[in-house]
Amino acid sequence: MTRTNFFDLSCPSPVPDRETVQLAHGGGGRAMKQLIDEIVRPAFQDPELDRGHDGALLDVNGPLAFTSDSYVVRPLFFPGGDIGSLAVNGTVNDLAMCGARPLYLSVGLILEEGLSIDTLRRVLASTRGAAVATGVRLVTGDTKVVDRGKMDGMFINTAGVGKIVAPSKIGPESVRLGDVVIVSGDIGRHGIAVMAAREGFGFETPIASDCAPLAAPVLALINEGIATHCLRDLTRGGLASAAVEIAESSGLAIALEEQAIPICAEVKSACELFGFDPLHVANEGRFIAFVPQEDAARTVEILRRWPVGKNAAIIGAVEESPRGRVTCRGPLGVRRAVDMLSGEQLPRIC
Amino acid sequence: MTRTNFFDLSCPSPVPDRETVQLAHGGGGRAMKQLIDEIVRPAFQDPELDRGHDGALLDVNGPLAFTSDSYVVRPLFFPGGDIGSLAVNGTVNDLAMCGARPLYLSVGLILEEGLSIDTLRRVLASTRGAAVATGVRLVTGDTKVVDRGKMDGMFINTAGVGKIVAPSKIGPESVRLGDVVIVSGDIGRHGIAVMAAREGFGFETPIASDCAPLAAPVLALINEGIATHCLRDLTRGGLASAAVEIAESSGLAIALEEQAIPICAEVKSACELFGFDPLHVANEGRFIAFVPQEDAARTVEILRRWPVGKNAAIIGAVEESPRGRVTCRGPLGVRRAVDMLSGEQLPRIC
Repeated sequence: MTRTNFFDLSCPSPVPDRETVQLAHGGGGRAMKQLIDEIVRPAFQDPELDRGHDGALLDVNGPLAFTSDSYVVRPLFFPGGDIGSLAVNGTVNDLAMCGARPLYLSVGLILEEGLSIDTLRRVLASTRGAAVATGVRLVTGDTKVVDRGKMDGMFINTAGVGKIVAPSKIGPESVRLGDVVIVSGDIGRHGIAVMAAREGFGFETPIASDCAPLAAPVLALINEGIATHCLRDLTRGGLASAAVEIAESSGLAIALEEQAIPICAEVKSACELFGFDPLHVANEGRFIAFVPQEDAARTVEILRRWPVGKNAAIIGAVEESPRGRVTCRGPLGVRRAVDMLSGEQLPRIC
Repeated sequence: MTRTNFFDLSCPSPVPDRETVQLAHGGGGRAMKQLIDEIVRPAFQDPELDRGHDGALLDVNGPLAFTSDSYVVRPLFFPGGDIGSLAVNGTVNDLAMCGARPLYLSVGLILEEGLSIDTLRRVLASTRGAAVATGVRLVTGDTKVVDRGKMDGMFINTAGVGKIVAPSKIGPESVRLGDVVIVSGDIGRHGIAVMAAREGFGFETPIASDCAPLAAPVLALINEGIATHCLRDLTRGGLASAAVEIAESSGLAIALEEQAIPICAEVKSACELFGFDPLHVANEGRFIAFVPQEDAARTVEILRRWPVGKNAAIIGAVEESPRGRVTCRGPLGVRRAVDMLSGEQLPRIC
């Protein structure tokens, strides 16, 4: 069959405007097929997508992890990343936190009528680039188009399947009294970077998002025999939300040491300026690990081998009380309660 | 820990308005946790969700199918279904089309600030009901909130994992010359039902969507040894798009018989009234099957055991030419070319 090239201006096109996304691109007809055949599939390059069937066939055995996240970040592009790399790294990181090697992702695009095809191409290229960087395959997907003004540019959902490689269950239920809490790097960059991009603030030293895949350092911890009891990536709600969730789920107390928590000077200044608690600011390439005391130093040593882990540090310990609560000891030695963010701080940060 | 009940009006709440979705519900903090703990998790009731971790652990072995779809249908509720049941059935059906038993779904919610909590509850209850009806588990998910006016009520993404039970590959690559094309029921109900609900048309005899799970009849075909070469559910773009996609992928010709295609009188009248070709109108509970001639009659007999398949019929055959094309012979014996919908017909139908 002769295939007309939809984006070649010399050929007839089923939509009047070839530079932007049209409602017809979501209609299930010729225009949708062309958008997918000429823009989406070539951007992702996976034989499973090329089969043109309703789903992908996965070649995987043994226990699996399965996770999903939608991404609605505004703006689509920010220093250090964009919605495409975020959508891959965020889901890859959730799989890593389950002790799984990320293998397969689905990509669900929801596009606003009028979105520029150039923007779409850039995001898809970045999506693919992030997938290649982690060795995860984009094997199935879906494209929907919503009428102009009824959504904001572009949302992406990714779901991921990974093979569990951890020898025992990683999760809040495995946290033990005496475990040491380790953070994989300095916190708060993503939230400040996105806020600055959105509001048009120019800091003297620009802050880039920490958006990055965490699978490699996590798999190294597992391979080298670290007893990783629990892992949690720090996203919306920041370090505070992650710690509180784990304290509540495990029924144990988490005692943090404020001075041990790595925060770069630029993030610290921005937080002071805007009145944010850095413990509540979002991250997209940081996690906390709960490991036994005897594995703590080695965990930090392993994490520091990666650029993304170069500021890894021990920041606290698991105690018996107050049960289900997080506390943080400040520079004057006073211990304050840490709670999740109440209300909203930075909407649409991921 | 004493948990405040967010939706009990006697208790303090982190958001000012308890009746609608607030931006804080997407912020990763206390309000989000409460929305999920008190509305989402109880609606879905799965122990994997209750673990409170970043992903689900799947207990599954052998070859898997993996698929994902986003749902942006407008309005959220329509005769015969709603966005919740649609989001489950649509993804369950994609898994079934791969010859897989649907096992696990993720649910990604994108909510507009101001959406009523009551609407959310109703959709989640319907989501869960559809999952229970098919025996699929809702094991992981995500909730995002977008500022008012920047999206339209509620979008849902579901991704699904299923265990492949078909003995050989089901897909366009397995279609053979001489295969018979069977449709599982009468076509066009979903598209007409949603359009009528959206535009406020009242037909004399109201048309309900065909939105339904197709896993049971598909698994029966496989269990009873039908050589199912290819299966495709008819969604956006209707029967025409599904047939054209398969003709193009397989490089074979599909010859349909117009008078054999089941269409109820109400859908036929509505299509005449609005100038739609019923072959282009969306369905959400119908599929086509490609089987060898010797299995055709038995396929129809098996499908008719289910209410959803009671109008199953043989509608065509796979021929050699014109290669990669679909034709349809009309009542006067003239064969016309069938193409995908060009342009849009009914946006946001699913």
